[in-house]
Amino acid sequence: MKKVLVANRGEIAVRIIRACKDLGIESVSIYSEADADSLHRKIATESYCVGPKLSKNSYLDMISIITIAKKAGCDAVHPGYGFLAENSDFAELCEASNLIFIGPMHETISLMGVKDVAKDTMIKANVPTVPGSDGVVASIEDAKVISAEIGYPVIIKASHGGGGKGIRVARDEKELVQNYKMTEQEAESAFGNKSLYIEKYIENFRHIEIQVLGDYHGNVVHLGERDCTIQRRMQKLVEEAPSPILTPEKRKEMGETSVRAAKSINYIGAGTIEFIYDLNEDQFYFMEMNTRIQVEHPVTEMVTGIDLVKMQIKIARREEIPFKQEDIEFNGHAMEFRINAENPYKNFMPSAGKVTEYITPGGYGVRMDTACYSGYVIPPYYDSMIAKLIVYNNTREETLAASRRALDEFIIGGIETTIPFHMNLLKNDAFLSNDYNTNFLAYNDVMKD
Amino acid sequence: MKKVLVANRGEIAVRIIRACKDLGIESVSIYSEADADSLHRKIATESYCVGPKLSKNSYLDMISIITIAKKAGCDAVHPGYGFLAENSDFAELCEASNLIFIGPMHETISLMGVKDVAKDTMIKANVPTVPGSDGVVASIEDAKVISAEIGYPVIIKASHGGGGKGIRVARDEKELVQNYKMTEQEAESAFGNKSLYIEKYIENFRHIEIQVLGDYHGNVVHLGERDCTIQRRMQKLVEEAPSPILTPEKRKEMGETSVRAAKSINYIGAGTIEFIYDLNEDQFYFMEMNTRIQVEHPVTEMVTGIDLVKMQIKIARREEIPFKQEDIEFNGHAMEFRINAENPYKNFMPSAGKVTEYITPGGYGVRMDTACYSGYVIPPYYDSMIAKLIVYNNTREETLAASRRALDEFIIGGIETTIPFHMNLLKNDAFLSNDYNTNFLAYNDVMKD
Repeated sequence: MKKVLVANRGEIAVRIIRACKDLGIESVSIYSEADADSLHRKIATESYCVGPKLSKNSYLDMISIITIAKKAGCDAVHPGYGFLAENSDFAELCEASNLIFIGPMHETISLMGVKDVAKDTMIKANVPTVPGSDGVVASIEDAKVISAEIGYPVIIKASHGGGGKGIRVARDEKELVQNYKMTEQEAESAFGNKSLYIEKYIENFRHIEIQVLGDYHGNVVHLGERDCTIQRRMQKLVEEAPSPILTPEKRKEMGETSVRAAKSINYIGAGTIEFIYDLNEDQFYFMEMNTRIQVEHPVTEMVTGIDLVKMQIKIARREEIPFKQEDIEFNGHAMEFRINAENPYKNFMPSAGKVTEYITPGGYGVRMDTACYSGYVIPPYYDSMIAKLIVYNNTREETLAASRRALDEFIIGGIETTIPFHMNLLKNDAFLSNDYNTNFLAYNDVMKD
Repeated sequence: MKKVLVANRGEIAVRIIRACKDLGIESVSIYSEADADSLHRKIATESYCVGPKLSKNSYLDMISIITIAKKAGCDAVHPGYGFLAENSDFAELCEASNLIFIGPMHETISLMGVKDVAKDTMIKANVPTVPGSDGVVASIEDAKVISAEIGYPVIIKASHGGGGKGIRVARDEKELVQNYKMTEQEAESAFGNKSLYIEKYIENFRHIEIQVLGDYHGNVVHLGERDCTIQRRMQKLVEEAPSPILTPEKRKEMGETSVRAAKSINYIGAGTIEFIYDLNEDQFYFMEMNTRIQVEHPVTEMVTGIDLVKMQIKIARREEIPFKQEDIEFNGHAMEFRINAENPYKNFMPSAGKVTEYITPGGYGVRMDTACYSGYVIPPYYDSMIAKLIVYNNTREETLAASRRALDEFIIGGIETTIPFHMNLLKNDAFLSNDYNTNFLAYNDVMKD
């Protein structure tokens, strides 16, 4: 592998270009007309304009991307996260164009992309799943029967959903009828497929996910868990590793379950198995599998000392994973804070525009992953995340103290960001004492000025 | 300890303020009239102007500093490096003013500050030293006799010298006579004391130093070595840990020797024992001891996971070192690149002025310690180091690759810096293959454009 096209933008494009450089591989970046001054364009070996500002005409335009990759003499494509990362057609098109797709096989992406099929697959691999419909629900009448059987509240999910869309809760039959129709419409328009399935709705839970790696030689390992319970409308805001609620026994069980799950589908590359961790029952259930590198991967890198993007590339080069499960050591505690160009006091309204001042924190245990700089103009067309602040120290308490320090130092002028939200979070007793679930934001004042 | 006055400026002041914050301690920064916009002023809990631009009237003005510390209600002072860090009078004055001096006892600073006394002390502790005069040389006639005895070339050193000043080599008796007088004059004017001593001059050597920590409970540990062989006129430019030339046996021997040396003087706090590592003989000799935190301390932090400035503060609080020698684990490889506002192509001429653009590298294994930011005006009155880029990875080779990537990303506009020097260094075969000594810069083209 000599030259990789990075089919993404912003911090993850920068992250991937860095991994390429570390491995002595050339990188080609693509940028939309709105991203001409972007850092991912500047630091790549080469860069090409892929199209106009709207993603559908640029970062989602498969043909243009493949054309650039071929023209530039690339032999591989890294999709990052979002955009085309979990589009099996794109993965297939890359392979058909003699470009290594740095990710799992396209069949795996398909399999895990359809939520009810993924769930079925996991049931077969003996992975615990939330009680619910046996696959897709045929009609609203069926939905009523199933919901009465498993008991309210239930959750209605689009088979092809993702990213917090196409999901609704129903607390009784009346809500079920209403929400079933709404979710069906949303699924149809957002994912082009209106299939729905139903599950028992678990209210008091933590979001805990396991990082896995698989290679072409049959090796699968897990790299421990990430706790991503601090979410706003199913969008993660803060992630940490290890999870402060897991016992060593549960951690081991979740890791082993995830390795079994990944093995059952011959998983290749880096992937994440997301679990609902039911706090009432102390039991975990498969939620979904993300067949890509995740935003929050750095917290795992900090506690394991393993560079996940380098590993993705090595695996795509058909190399064997250079360590065994028992070689992986877990040390310290890491947290990631997503710095979004949003106003946390105005319902997280996006706040694009010119960054007039940008002084990032640093020093012991601080890692910055960002594509932002002083003078950069944030375009309004894409995801609002502009930086990831990753903090590492020996214990959760020390990491919290260092995070407070780092956030306090972080100066971003000209736009609104989630920094004040994070600073409030780090003063919140429930968060500090680890007494919270995924509804944390609904019941806490951290978004108040 | 509730409030620490940081008696320094720039990156080390920022570093110390960060450690204070991580420990929940308030910090007070002092700034000269030229440093009103400095980052160390901005991030401290409180800040006070200590005097005019010239250091002798500000950062070296002991009375003003102590007055501010008392007025602000501080209970401790951290001197950083440079300025008053190795001034035993200042340490004594702090103690007399009921301020904990975060550093060794003032008697220890005195003892190690006089080079020939330090050497004598080490001989008594059975630490290998370079053959030379038995303490201070009485006259030029004595110098001739001693030099003839140990054999040329010899090195003439000022007893009270430091920082690369008051040192001269003599290759024969004629040079000895000339340089003896010049060094005497320089010593008199720079250190107020003209005492000189003489040593065998070892030409083919590496600069290797051992980090030690001692506490008030009689515990002394070492944290391994740093290789600081890449120097320009005895000013370090790049440091790494571990040293790529040490065998495990030599490493152990140097560590144990350093612990013995530190124990023999009841050393308290963080200190560094610098050694000449003779490449011809594979033997190490005591050079000097630095009784302070060093610029290059982060490379040790990266490979040990121990925060040295936090440790300094904990030790000053009379806490016991919370680990034993056998608990200290060494992992991976770290390098530090000193980013100085200097023109490497014009004999490292200082290049102060306005920083018009400042985009720092980041991502996996990159740590930035800096007090610089976009729009900052570097004053011409102080040390030219504006940032430390610290890179960490599994092996030296991987760290070199990541360093190349990080330096390549680093954009500093408006001034000249040592970044191009470092980039040339990372292309140099002798450096890459580890075949060099302290004369590296004299024989290599890394400073050419």
